[in-house]
Amino acid sequence: MARGTKKADLVLRGGSLVNVFSGEIYRADVAVCGGKIAGLGEYEGRTVVDVSSRYILPGFIDSHVHIESSMLAPAEFARAALPHGTTAVIADPHEIANVLGRTGIQYMLAASEGLPLDFYFMLPSCVPATSLETSGARLRAADLLPFIKHRRVLGLAEVMNYPGELHGEPDVLQKLKAFSHALIDGHAPGLSDYDLSAYAGAGISSDHECTTADEAQRKIRLGMTIFLREGSAAKDLEALLPAVTWANTRFFTLATDDFQPGDLKRGSMNQIIKKAIRLGMDPIMAVQMATINAARHFGLRQKGAILPGYDADIVVIDDLKNFGVEKVFKAGKLVAEGGACIATIRNRRHERARGTVRTGPIDKQDLMVKAKTGLARVIELIPDQIETKCSILPVTVQGGYVVSDIQRDILKLVVIERHKATGNRGFGLIKGLGLKSGAIASTVAHDSHNIITSGVADEDILAAVVRVQKIHGGLVVVNNRKVIAEIALPVAGLMSDKGLDFVVNKLAEIDAAVKGLGTRLEHPFGMLSFLALPVIPELKLTDRGLVDVKQFTFVDLFV
Amino acid sequence: MARGTKKADLVLRGGSLVNVFSGEIYRADVAVCGGKIAGLGEYEGRTVVDVSSRYILPGFIDSHVHIESSMLAPAEFARAALPHGTTAVIADPHEIANVLGRTGIQYMLAASEGLPLDFYFMLPSCVPATSLETSGARLRAADLLPFIKHRRVLGLAEVMNYPGELHGEPDVLQKLKAFSHALIDGHAPGLSDYDLSAYAGAGISSDHECTTADEAQRKIRLGMTIFLREGSAAKDLEALLPAVTWANTRFFTLATDDFQPGDLKRGSMNQIIKKAIRLGMDPIMAVQMATINAARHFGLRQKGAILPGYDADIVVIDDLKNFGVEKVFKAGKLVAEGGACIATIRNRRHERARGTVRTGPIDKQDLMVKAKTGLARVIELIPDQIETKCSILPVTVQGGYVVSDIQRDILKLVVIERHKATGNRGFGLIKGLGLKSGAIASTVAHDSHNIITSGVADEDILAAVVRVQKIHGGLVVVNNRKVIAEIALPVAGLMSDKGLDFVVNKLAEIDAAVKGLGTRLEHPFGMLSFLALPVIPELKLTDRGLVDVKQFTFVDLFV
Repeated sequence: MARGTKKADLVLRGGSLVNVFSGEIYRADVAVCGGKIAGLGEYEGRTVVDVSSRYILPGFIDSHVHIESSMLAPAEFARAALPHGTTAVIADPHEIANVLGRTGIQYMLAASEGLPLDFYFMLPSCVPATSLETSGARLRAADLLPFIKHRRVLGLAEVMNYPGELHGEPDVLQKLKAFSHALIDGHAPGLSDYDLSAYAGAGISSDHECTTADEAQRKIRLGMTIFLREGSAAKDLEALLPAVTWANTRFFTLATDDFQPGDLKRGSMNQIIKKAIRLGMDPIMAVQMATINAARHFGLRQKGAILPGYDADIVVIDDLKNFGVEKVFKAGKLVAEGGACIATIRNRRHERARGTVRTGPIDKQDLMVKAKTGLARVIELIPDQIETKCSILPVTVQGGYVVSDIQRDILKLVVIERHKATGNRGFGLIKGLGLKSGAIASTVAHDSHNIITSGVADEDILAAVVRVQKIHGGLVVVNNRKVIAEIALPVAGLMSDKGLDFVVNKLAEIDAAVKGLGTRLEHPFGMLSFLALPVIPELKLTDRGLVDVKQFTFVDLFV
Repeated sequence: MARGTKKADLVLRGGSLVNVFSGEIYRADVAVCGGKIAGLGEYEGRTVVDVSSRYILPGFIDSHVHIESSMLAPAEFARAALPHGTTAVIADPHEIANVLGRTGIQYMLAASEGLPLDFYFMLPSCVPATSLETSGARLRAADLLPFIKHRRVLGLAEVMNYPGELHGEPDVLQKLKAFSHALIDGHAPGLSDYDLSAYAGAGISSDHECTTADEAQRKIRLGMTIFLREGSAAKDLEALLPAVTWANTRFFTLATDDFQPGDLKRGSMNQIIKKAIRLGMDPIMAVQMATINAARHFGLRQKGAILPGYDADIVVIDDLKNFGVEKVFKAGKLVAEGGACIATIRNRRHERARGTVRTGPIDKQDLMVKAKTGLARVIELIPDQIETKCSILPVTVQGGYVVSDIQRDILKLVVIERHKATGNRGFGLIKGLGLKSGAIASTVAHDSHNIITSGVADEDILAAVVRVQKIHGGLVVVNNRKVIAEIALPVAGLMSDKGLDFVVNKLAEIDAAVKGLGTRLEHPFGMLSFLALPVIPELKLTDRGLVDVKQFTFVDLFV
């Protein structure tokens, strides 16, 4: 067929090909046969699609994404991301693995099988994330290693435990050794050159945590491919652009990392490429980052370019400035058009990942804490940051028990272990949430995803927790003991079993409801989800208690 | 160690690092531990080498070389190439495989084991090269496939049988299928875009036969990595440079392909990089081609760059213009200095590859041919080309037999099968060799490497052939029945068991001796070695007879 002696299955005719291999943009027909690119030039096809005055690009590859942050299961994620031109992702199922361990990884592999978007996986390297919390599982090297045989598993995901790596912690070293012949992604904010040398020398070949061009340059000098991250919260693209040159550009890729449902509705990789071009990057360079650079880094030999023998994953856009995705082909089949997914994606079953909220019965007594002294360590929110302050403040007491105080905006914060019904409960106080009444509860609480809840009256807190239990995880807003907004996230307590529109609408209702309770935070549940993450300074709360992050130890609530 | 808490084994201090990953040249110490790069920056070492005002580069990688063309066995090739900064080669043992088949490949793997130069191999895909000659072996997909398990075997070497590939010949398709998960190198001069699409689409991912920038651009548009070849005969670098841009440079590498002993004495990859820079290429770009680009193309993850965790294969040069190689380190050990190899390379045994000249007894009668008519097809040499002309000329006859005619410079040419003692002999006539007396004989005759011989008197031709038999292969010059110059090539009849200096001196003696017999050709044995290659037009001679290359059929000597 390539020789032009037979008709192709499909020919895209009249467009400008962005050839990321030759680094050129030129007029060429693209011929497809059997789901693969058959030829470039002039071809006849049984189906001919006119793409005159359009640009033909390889499908986009997201180098690092936590699917769970979209609150969508893989099939619905595919439906949401395909219209934006994303045809492959390298996912790190870190969140679900912290809930379900190997079962979580198995679920993600099964739930993403046969979809018109390729899900590749890096195996979560840090489950649990710390020793100061109770996760749903502990994954050792021996638990992870069997997965490497899977066609879509490429290596070990972001090794966050860089202190562990640098100090030769056995568990970390075992994992690095076990995956020394595969890919290992990094996560190393702010290391010194010496520490970075040791980190890179251990085979960790990428990083997506750079926040300055200088940091990116130091890492690329040590051989780390840089994933330019442009997520919902962390937006590093603009700051890092000065580090990119033509001589090193091949070692940069693009990634979303954490992308919230609302953002996913508006765009994905297409928006990041567009932004890079708008910021002055050469369009070829920007498209290479989202395609061939990622494919080569991850060893995906038949992806990332429109070349004979490669997978026919193709994006047609209007122009290189507006970057409007008009058509998306996956393996030669039209899967999205005009912003809508038109692929047939059958509904998936999520049994393996359901029913993950396992606590004993909880009553009001369980949410009460006796005042040992009059002064407590209070978690104080810092606007627009996930870091917190530790403030020593007087507590408000009723009948010997600490209570929320809306005048001073100091509310009770409780983390309830939900994986093994240990009965673990951590108590804290939070300043800055701003609720004047009601309560909120959630099973999305990095990284162990226990139940986290805060509110004014204990009755409302209890009602929110009970509701979260009943719907097998999710986000719940309660006022006067009534649920006023919620979204069920029955898939591991992290993901909905519905589609993107449903999730986005529910989240809008939830944000409005929490604002109605008095908060001024833009995404109160987003803020809540980081309050149990004991690796971000300064004071955090896990199911096992208050954590002084800098000392990496538990501290008493009371001073 | 990388963290600077312990001393490194070795530190190169004070030099400018050519960092092919970050695309920069800057001042940095290079620390080595356990044969690997440990860190870049400032380090203390147990051994500190001052490289002030010098440049530190990764070891050079030759993307495609036939070791046999150097007439050196692997150990001696390593000794010869290391001082020029070549620390890894991707070799195609096509020549020895045509003599010895699988045994030849096994010999090359064994003979290159444990050397201070890394020999990687692509498996010869075209043994025999054609159906019109008798080679020492026939290698089918099933013969080649087991070798892929070897750590240093990377895939299938240059698929020259592009007509076979394009027309779906079973043997070629089986090989392509068998190696579809490995690398496949190409060899496709002058194909159309349609044919190239089919060729590239079959998974053939490189080409080193481009002679024009336009051809290189057409191939790179179809996803073929281009090895810029700058060998002893074929010098393509300058012509191809216009095809290289910063946006596609990563898909270009450098290769010697066929490099004669005399050239190897003067330089290797260092000379090619130097020439590229002299022709205007950015030094970073040129060094990247010879290092990281090749390493990435061939999947050599810890080679091609000076980065933590990578193999400490390092070249120290004086400057980027003169490109004088001062020191070469392999796995952190100094192996060459000031142009000399100082590594300990133990002598190798070549038993497996000896004794390959297997003919029955040959007497004068065997070299005589009856004149059937008065006109013959004569192979006419074209100066400085390996193509020949077919000229119809009268023959000189004595006693009914064709004889050499020094007045008209038409000499007898005989090819004698030497692998299986079949008794096959091909007879021809050659115009342009210029011998006025004596004879020459050789076992280096592409691609089947039968004995090829030409001369004036049958007695001298016989003496040369008998001598070649006796020394188990080599190049022999005879005059008046006495050997006046020779080099034994007992390793498969292709390679010496001595070192580079010995070979270069012998070849100089041989060239002088043949010139003394009257030839004006610069390298008469070089010319002779291509006269049995039935894929280069117009008229060639194999052990099975005269070949009309354009028709790809045998033709009679007499018209």
